Amino acid sequence: MSSPYGLHRVVEPAGVLPQQAWRLSTELPLWPDEVLVDVERLNLDAASYRQLREEHGSPAAVRRAVAEIIERRGKMHNPVTGSGGMLLGTVREVGPESRLALTEGDRIATLVSLTLTPLRIDDGLENWSGEGEQVPCQGAAILFGRSIAAVLPTDLPAELALSVFDVCGAPALTDRVVREAGSGSSVLVLGGGGKSGSLSLAAARRAGAGRLVALVPTDSEGDAVRAAGLADEVVVADARDPVAVADAVGSQVDVTVVCVDVPGCEHGAVLATADGGTIVFFSMATSFSSAALGAEGLAADVRMLVGNGFVPGHADFALELFRANPGVRALFSHRERHTATA
Amino acid sequence: MSSPYGLHRVVEPAGVLPQQAWRLSTELPLWPDEVLVDVERLNLDAASYRQLREEHGSPAAVRRAVAEIIERRGKMHNPVTGSGGMLLGTVREVGPESRLALTEGDRIATLVSLTLTPLRIDDGLENWSGEGEQVPCQGAAILFGRSIAAVLPTDLPAELALSVFDVCGAPALTDRVVREAGSGSSVLVLGGGGKSGSLSLAAARRAGAGRLVALVPTDSEGDAVRAAGLADEVVVADARDPVAVADAVGSQVDVTVVCVDVPGCEHGAVLATADGGTIVFFSMATSFSSAALGAEGLAADVRMLVGNGFVPGHADFALELFRANPGVRALFSHRERHTATA
Repeated sequence: MSSPYGLHRVVEPAGVLPQQAWRLSTELPLWPDEVLVDVERLNLDAASYRQLREEHGSPAAVRRAVAEIIERRGKMHNPVTGSGGMLLGTVREVGPESRLALTEGDRIATLVSLTLTPLRIDDGLENWSGEGEQVPCQGAAILFGRSIAAVLPTDLPAELALSVFDVCGAPALTDRVVREAGSGSSVLVLGGGGKSGSLSLAAARRAGAGRLVALVPTDSEGDAVRAAGLADEVVVADARDPVAVADAVGSQVDVTVVCVDVPGCEHGAVLATADGGTIVFFSMATSFSSAALGAEGLAADVRMLVGNGFVPGHADFALELFRANPGVRALFSHRERHTATA
Repeated sequence: MSSPYGLHRVVEPAGVLPQQAWRLSTELPLWPDEVLVDVERLNLDAASYRQLREEHGSPAAVRRAVAEIIERRGKMHNPVTGSGGMLLGTVREVGPESRLALTEGDRIATLVSLTLTPLRIDDGLENWSGEGEQVPCQGAAILFGRSIAAVLPTDLPAELALSVFDVCGAPALTDRVVREAGSGSSVLVLGGGGKSGSLSLAAARRAGAGRLVALVPTDSEGDAVRAAGLADEVVVADARDPVAVADAVGSQVDVTVVCVDVPGCEHGAVLATADGGTIVFFSMATSFSSAALGAEGLAADVRMLVGNGFVPGHADFALELFRANPGVRALFSHRERHTATA
């Protein structure tokens, strides 16, 4: 019998959930509650892509590395960062017992991580240069009984919708946390110029944030965020430098949202957050022990949340924010251009 | 000028906080806001000790490894686990500008991690066998302006007080989370037979928990927890096996507290927790990405907290729970005996 969690697709080690597995099976035919997807594009997790670029150097070597990971693991699960990404494709076959409400021919994006999605590549990634996080490809993916997938909107290009879905947990959880903190709460977004960062700024504003601060790494990104009008204050500092972060932000905030995809941002977030405040960590580069021991070492009574990528309704919420905010759209375009030329 | 966070003690890399540093300076004389402590005992973090045992094998090799880490880093900061522990000693000198309210001659325990405490060992750890987490030694440690240290109680042996302080963040945060969840909330403690686990069970009960479940790895530990009377239900399962955890716990709980010091317990916690519920991760072996992606992959709308080791008043709260609960005391003794003979 198949499992709604995909246990029946785990090859090794036996008895773990798909995300913890070293290797998944992509074998056909489908189980009755599964969905088969023709893949057309992967969207790699930013931390994963950065790590692969640093380890392998040239775009061609990155392409080979990604193809090899998928071939060996039956999923795109970066063994160093532990992260994956998401994909876009078309529903080819829906099992008779599937509860995902999908129909053959739907163009969809998966909203569960690639780290637990059985995936097979059929074209050796030959249409991808190895540059940027979006990977055009031909292949097949399998969704389980409890997977989450969103049908793509018709008013946005697919690549753009995918970029929004990829980070849609951040604005949804930011909305919830800022509402809990209360109207007028001060909010800081580390990495406010990125995709999850700009959506989180927009979500915080809509949720009733008072003072709203965006921290970015460079003057040019600062100019872009200022032009987008998403924050009351835009400050420039290296998020990995706790003392610089604290100096740049000034008086401590009630809520800090960490959207910077490099390691070492935990202590800056702690120093910038007032006692009794909340930090939401969305970066997959977050170190659990560094966050826990950092707050303890600084005697900081802050609530620290692991950014859960799933909040009910998160995809629609993020799309709606994106459509309503020209500033967010401008930053997404800026980011895509920046990534393409980096 | 000295920094209350100890920035002036960082040798490399420059400009980071002490916990992030590779190496700290133990140089004397003291800065005006510092406190010098004659060290008599270290209490290693459980995850760190376990890793050292697995990597180095014999007790003598573990002893050498610990001495070498302290010599090279100027602090007891396990480079693999990223964790440390705490220490016990006597105040030798109090700087004229110190705000820690300590007096020369006070016997104290540090409540900040060894990963950020400048530490020098003078006896080569010659009085430690290399077995167990408690390390008798002679040496010197330095506390900064914002460190936290508790004067040892006179009604408990020092080693016991140290063991309680070492995990005192867990019951304090459990208390807060269970009260937020509301009276009668169901609570699961993974690793309920350990030190942080048994104190968390006692804290949950006092905070008004309804159904209270302890999960432990072995029948003998199950018997001990049952005898201690700290939970309504005691179940035996491997916390690293999500499906086994879910089966053992049965209906999902409102609050799950993770006190198991081995990697791979994130997904069991997610599967055992109801949508809308909260998970508190206290184990330093927690993987941030595994927690984040696991909840997303299981489409679980759970709030996940990084267990902050600092909650105001946590030391006194833990001591008070310990004194008031014969069951907790029994499990601590059981645990100490078990560790000593392992």
